[in-house]
Amino acid sequence: MTVESMHVRSRAGDEAKEQKQTACARVLAVLSAFSSSGGAPLSLTDISRRAGLTLTTTHRLVGELTEWGALERDERQYRIGIKVLELAASSTRGLELREVAMPYLMDLHAATRENVHLAVRAGLEVVYVERLHAPGGVELLSKIGGRWPLHATGTGLVLLAFADYDVQEQVLSGPLQRFTSKTICDSPTLRRALAEVKRTRVAITEGQITPGAVAIASPIHGPDGDVVSAVGVVVPTTGFAPRGNEKPPPGGWKQQTIVPAVVTTARRISRALAG
Amino acid sequence: MTVESMHVRSRAGDEAKEQKQTACARVLAVLSAFSSSGGAPLSLTDISRRAGLTLTTTHRLVGELTEWGALERDERQYRIGIKVLELAASSTRGLELREVAMPYLMDLHAATRENVHLAVRAGLEVVYVERLHAPGGVELLSKIGGRWPLHATGTGLVLLAFADYDVQEQVLSGPLQRFTSKTICDSPTLRRALAEVKRTRVAITEGQITPGAVAIASPIHGPDGDVVSAVGVVVPTTGFAPRGNEKPPPGGWKQQTIVPAVVTTARRISRALAG
Repeated sequence: MTVESMHVRSRAGDEAKEQKQTACARVLAVLSAFSSSGGAPLSLTDISRRAGLTLTTTHRLVGELTEWGALERDERQYRIGIKVLELAASSTRGLELREVAMPYLMDLHAATRENVHLAVRAGLEVVYVERLHAPGGVELLSKIGGRWPLHATGTGLVLLAFADYDVQEQVLSGPLQRFTSKTICDSPTLRRALAEVKRTRVAITEGQITPGAVAIASPIHGPDGDVVSAVGVVVPTTGFAPRGNEKPPPGGWKQQTIVPAVVTTARRISRALAG
Repeated sequence: MTVESMHVRSRAGDEAKEQKQTACARVLAVLSAFSSSGGAPLSLTDISRRAGLTLTTTHRLVGELTEWGALERDERQYRIGIKVLELAASSTRGLELREVAMPYLMDLHAATRENVHLAVRAGLEVVYVERLHAPGGVELLSKIGGRWPLHATGTGLVLLAFADYDVQEQVLSGPLQRFTSKTICDSPTLRRALAEVKRTRVAITEGQITPGAVAIASPIHGPDGDVVSAVGVVVPTTGFAPRGNEKPPPGGWKQQTIVPAVVTTARRISRALAG
């Protein structure tokens, strides 16, 4: 089979697939092409390939989306437009929460000089809505809009501990992805960890995704009392209280100062959301 | 005409309107309903009314958008979903720019304790992609994703001064909206202001939207040298250099310290974007 005939075959496949999709699904497929590109600008051909749509359909939809502002054209490439940020800003759980929380997150960042996270739950995942990076801190894989499984991060554990029974059982019964040797991957251990988080209102977890990093997180309540978000700090394990019985250093373990700062920040944000 | 018959008439109008729209336009109309609500959750009826679509179509599209994550359901109301934030995070001009700029914006905020803005141009408007609020500072109308005419804000003047000739002429020839008695509303004055901004690489403008506030802004260059964004600070007029010949106070006018801080921040962000 020549390359050209493969191309024709695959295009024919796109056409067949396209006819089964709703118009709305085709629009969303175009937008999803950009999620999967990680923000890189895409040509019409790239978008068509990633969305699994014919070039004709892609061309038409990209034109309409560009006119509306969901996409922006830069010579022969397209990228997500500023209108999407505008729309995101009207998401009560996203940028609006972030706007209320920001002064407190900045205080926490200034006080600790460590990486600060603000996260919400989306289904069985945790999504970061804010991340303040500590220049000298732990190198993290997190980014705004990034998603991780709930069991593997500090903020995720908090959100899972305060989630409905159904959500908890779904996570506990499903496979628990392993990232490092320290990731909690068995359900009895996870169940105990969640009970502890619920009791103490703080999650402290070490090296679950990044070796050498400790995550400390605490729940944020919405005006009706539900847990709507979690705030967390990620610090290097060095200087943090070990699991053994070693004596603390003269200034105390870092945990002693970081935990109250995180808990206080969570409470301050809850209060601001209620006001 | 009874209320009921009016309702039927308007629904019939929606149906006629709907048939003229493309499928993509109908999807975008549903999303736009949330921009116009300012982020407030909407019922199906609200969405249908704002989008100008029949309830049947609205119901079907809202269902598909919710499944994909663009909308989230909260009992009988819908709001913009976290997936839109994820998508916005992959906008090179939006959250990605913000992520690179953030450490420098925080430094500027810490150094000045004033309101800090990061903005881009979208057509003939300025859109805020970041806003760090100063608790004791000037009360501002800006919010992330918010739009203003280019001629009326500090960051807007910078973006206009460095925009293409066509964009400048379009603004200069159009009506210039007045917000306060100090808004620049005639094109010769605006033309002079833009030349001055281009020459000095800093915009200093007083009370154009908020009386008693001075905006100071400077351009941020992308890797290819084009101006892609602007950073600005808004400070209370008190303590700022007046237009007259008064002697400066012992510590100098606030302008003397703020302007270099804004210009330096803009240069640091340009450098970070290039690296």
